[in-house]
Parts: sequence; structure tokens; C-alpha cells
Amino acid sequence: MSGSKCTRLGGPLVKQVLESVDSVLFDCDGVIWRGDQAIPGAAQVINLLKENGKKVFFVTNNSTKTRKMYADKMNTLGFDATEEEVFGTAYCSAMYLKTVCKVEGKVYLVGSNAMKQELEAVGIQQTGVGPDLISGKQLDWANVPLDADVKAVVVGFDEHFSYMKLNRALQYLSQPGCLFVGTNRDTRLPLEGGKAVPGTGCLLKAVETAAQRQAETVGKPNHFMFDCVASQYGIDPNRCLMVGDRLDTDIMLGSNCGLKTLLTLTGVSTVADAEAHQKSGCAERQGMVPDYYVDSIADLLPALQG
Amino acid sequence: MSGSKCTRLGGPLVKQVLESVDSVLFDCDGVIWRGDQAIPGAAQVINLLKENGKKVFFVTNNSTKTRKMYADKMNTLGFDATEEEVFGTAYCSAMYLKTVCKVEGKVYLVGSNAMKQELEAVGIQQTGVGPDLISGKQLDWANVPLDADVKAVVVGFDEHFSYMKLNRALQYLSQPGCLFVGTNRDTRLPLEGGKAVPGTGCLLKAVETAAQRQAETVGKPNHFMFDCVASQYGIDPNRCLMVGDRLDTDIMLGSNCGLKTLLTLTGVSTVADAEAHQKSGCAERQGMVPDYYVDSIADLLPALQG
Repeated sequence: MSGSKCTRLGGPLVKQVLESVDSVLFDCDGVIWRGDQAIPGAAQVINLLKENGKKVFFVTNNSTKTRKMYADKMNTLGFDATEEEVFGTAYCSAMYLKTVCKVEGKVYLVGSNAMKQELEAVGIQQTGVGPDLISGKQLDWANVPLDADVKAVVVGFDEHFSYMKLNRALQYLSQPGCLFVGTNRDTRLPLEGGKAVPGTGCLLKAVETAAQRQAETVGKPNHFMFDCVASQYGIDPNRCLMVGDRLDTDIMLGSNCGLKTLLTLTGVSTVADAEAHQKSGCAERQGMVPDYYVDSIADLLPALQG
Repeated sequence: MSGSKCTRLGGPLVKQVLESVDSVLFDCDGVIWRGDQAIPGAAQVINLLKENGKKVFFVTNNSTKTRKMYADKMNTLGFDATEEEVFGTAYCSAMYLKTVCKVEGKVYLVGSNAMKQELEAVGIQQTGVGPDLISGKQLDWANVPLDADVKAVVVGFDEHFSYMKLNRALQYLSQPGCLFVGTNRDTRLPLEGGKAVPGTGCLLKAVETAAQRQAETVGKPNHFMFDCVASQYGIDPNRCLMVGDRLDTDIMLGSNCGLKTLLTLTGVSTVADAEAHQKSGCAERQGMVPDYYVDSIADLLPALQG
């Protein structure tokens, strides 16, 4: 696999790259699907990789679904996938709190029902899910009743995010020893037609600004996401390929963990973005330059069928 | 007024400093009152300054009150003050939008009823005040109906801040030419007993992160707050004293505008904070070193009574 980075993956090189790896990690949105539509050919690629003996995993920063919800969606869209192959930030944050933070007590959760379920599945209780509207005045907010068992504040995607949740997070985080974990820092969730809605990174920034503290983040590009897969399945980073559509999360994760990296152009980032990083001369930005790129993961099909 | 900065203001120096100025700008919370309690002696100081022929103004980043609401509170607490002497960010943001931005159209307001009133008082209509709860899914959020007349997003303190407001701000700010104004960047509202609740800076940070744009901010330390007073009353900066409890807003405003500066220790910042800035050797931080400090503005009383 010699040569320069950011090479178009095509022709005989596809087979060569696939033969050099035993496992492939896929980001989901913008890579294997967009919203509720599978990328054409993606299911065939995933299924053929598995038939060819590759281990396949799904690694996503989206915290709104449990492993089971992801597996169900994949099966509906024709992907051969089990929940054990899914590593989303709802599940990985629960693992992080249990195995890295070893949190003993409850979590104040700014997040989804899916996160609640994944936390409970590893034996961590939470408080906070659902709407939390304002009442009273400043002094009431500052003295809002707190759950004495709460030992960590966790921030994921939460469509019920509110000033009162921000305030409650601040009050918990002002207590000595309270842990502070975020699922990820993605600032936007991109949708079709160039549209986007605010991502978890916006909510996390608000809480960090109020608390005057930085959260530990679990999601890509933090290597914990890969560690989570690797520790359970004994993955050799040298023989692993990370496939994603975002340079700052997917490709950076691959670089951080010593994986081979493949950018697919069906999502957020472009080849021009990658080349700008490459030419920047900035060491940190080199981690956002993929080894290879394809227009779509469907470009892997001929090599798998041949 | 020679000598080094950060000097305790006492003895004959008080009279000397007061004689060197024609007008005095006071921050409110932590300076003339704390919450609903006047700082002991503060009303007497303000009233005597006026009796001695000084112009007195109140300059606050708090955006939750109109000029009239402030004047009413002051009168209740025994201060001789009129609404024309109050320059809060609710009023100043309205002036900024009208005179600097010359906005033609509506404002999408993340803010209080007081801001709505001050905007309407200068002829600017708004939409957005009050609760805005979530419904539907991502695609609905991205396609939320927008008011075609909106030409600016304004972010102030808003206890009804919600994911839906954050999303609506993002959608407006994605339109070409949409202006983006914040009242201030204070990250916390400090309360008695070391408590605090999240400030406007947290909400602004969330919107800036979503929009991938920086807001123009009206409040201290932006010189617009002083310009607002100066243009209406013909203030000579050389003969003006800024009194405040925060180095990063009040004292910085004074430095930015060439005013004399006085830190009072009844609020947020300490002399140690000021000395740390002084010793830092960092040019930007020198602007946060006050000329003088007092334990309380009541320390000015003897010179005014004598």
C-alpha cells in the first residue's frame, strides 16, 4: 500500500486494499444510507464483504438510536447486520461510563430515550430524559432540587434541550467530582438538499460554556470508539479499514488509531476538503487526509463480485 | 492622575479622581445592588454624585429589563434615576439594530419580553418571544416555516431557550444576508452564595456553533455601549469614570473607550484577578487592569459628603 495519500480507489487497487484488511468499519449516515434511503449498492457491498470473510462493524456518532434500533433499520434496508456489530454513541457512552469512568451512581442525562436504554442495559440509572420546562426565577433555578445520587452529567443529542436542562447540568457540574461526558462534537446533522439541523456539539458547547469545563467526548474522532470494537473482537488496527464521509470525525478516527482510511463522497466532505488539509502543512490536519477515496462505496462492488 | 494602575482609591485621592470627571458610568448587578438588595450606601453615592453636578448613567449587559423596568427598580431601592439614564442591552441592542445595522424588516428574537418592547419602541417588529417546543422529526425541523420578513437573528437572555429556537435561528442564519447580533457574552449570571445560572453567552455559543458564524455583540466590553451614552449626552471619555465589578466586561469597556476605570469588590472580580492580568505581560489583558479599586462604592461617600 505504498504511494501518496488521498488516492482514488479503483481498478486492481480495490482488491489489493480489501485483501490487506480483515475488518471494515463503516460510518452510517452519508456512507451506507442517507436518512431513510440506502445508498444504492451499499447493502450488497456490506453483505459481500461478510461473505468474503471480513468482519464488518458500524461506527456512528448518532446517539438517538440503540444498537437494536440500528440493526432493525439495517435489516429493513437489506443489510446483513446484527446489533452486536453496531457501535453507536448511545451504546459506547454507556460502555465508557461503565468501563473507563467506572461511574458509581446515577447520570444526569441530556439525551434521548435510546441513551437511557443503553445506560440501563449496563446497569446505570439516569434522570433527565424528556421535556424540562422553566418555572420560577433565577434564585429558584440556582437552587433547583438535585438528585444526590448523580455522579456524572452526560450530554448527547436531545431535541428537548432547554434552558432548564442547561441550568440543571450547570448545577450538577458545580459539585465536586461530578464527571462530564459528551457523546460527540458534531455541530450539525446534515440532511438532503444542503439542509441541516443543530447537532449535539451545539448543546455540548452551551453546557461547557456554562460549566466552564470541557467534557470528555466518546465519539469519533476519539479512539475510544475503535477501542470499544477492538477490545470485543480483537481487531488488528493494521488490518482494518475505516470508511466514512467526514474528514474531521471518520477519517480522523482512522488516523488516530492507525487504521487504513477511505473517504466516500456520498456525504459531507469533498476531495477538495481533503486536498486542502493535505496542502496545509499543518501536522494536525494531516490526520484528516484519507488514504483513499471513492464516489460511493458501491465502487467496491466489482472487486467483491469478481 | 499619574502613578501605577490598580491603586486602592481612598483618602484625598477620591476627591481628586471625582474632580477629574464630569460623568460616571455604573454597572448595576454587583455594583449598586446584588439581586434585589441595594449595596449599602450605594443610593446615597449615586444621589450625591448627581447633586454635585455629575452626570450618572447605568450600563448593564442584562437584557431582561427595559429602561423603564430598571428605573422603577432603582427608584424602589432609593436611587435617583430616570429611564433616560439607563443603558441596558435590551435598549442598546434595539439602538444597534436601528442605527448601526439599519435593519429593514423583522428580527427573529431569542430573548425576553423586555427586548421585544425595546425593539418595538424603535419600530422593529420581532417574532420568537416565548416558549417554542419541539414537534415532528429532523426533516420537519429543517423545513420549519420561516417568516420571510426576518432579516436578523438577535440572541439575548431567554429562559425559554430550546432546541427548536436553536434550530429556527440556524435556519434563519442560513439565509443569505441575515444579520446576527448578540446582546452580550457573559457566560453566567452570578447569584448570592457563589451560586450562578447560565448566562446569555451559553445560548449565543450554541447558536454560533450551529450557524458556524460569529455574532456581533452589543454589550460590554464592546464600545457601542459607551458610544450609545456618549452620542446622546456628549460625553468626553477623558472626563468619564467607568465603575464595575467585572474586569472582562466593565473594566475592559472602560479601557476600550479611554475612560478612567474603578473596580468595586462587591461583585465578581477580585484584586488578585486584576493583579494577575497586570503581571501577565499580555497586552490584551492589560485592558482588564483597572486604574483604581474600592471595597464598595460606599467608599466614595466621605469625599462626596465632605
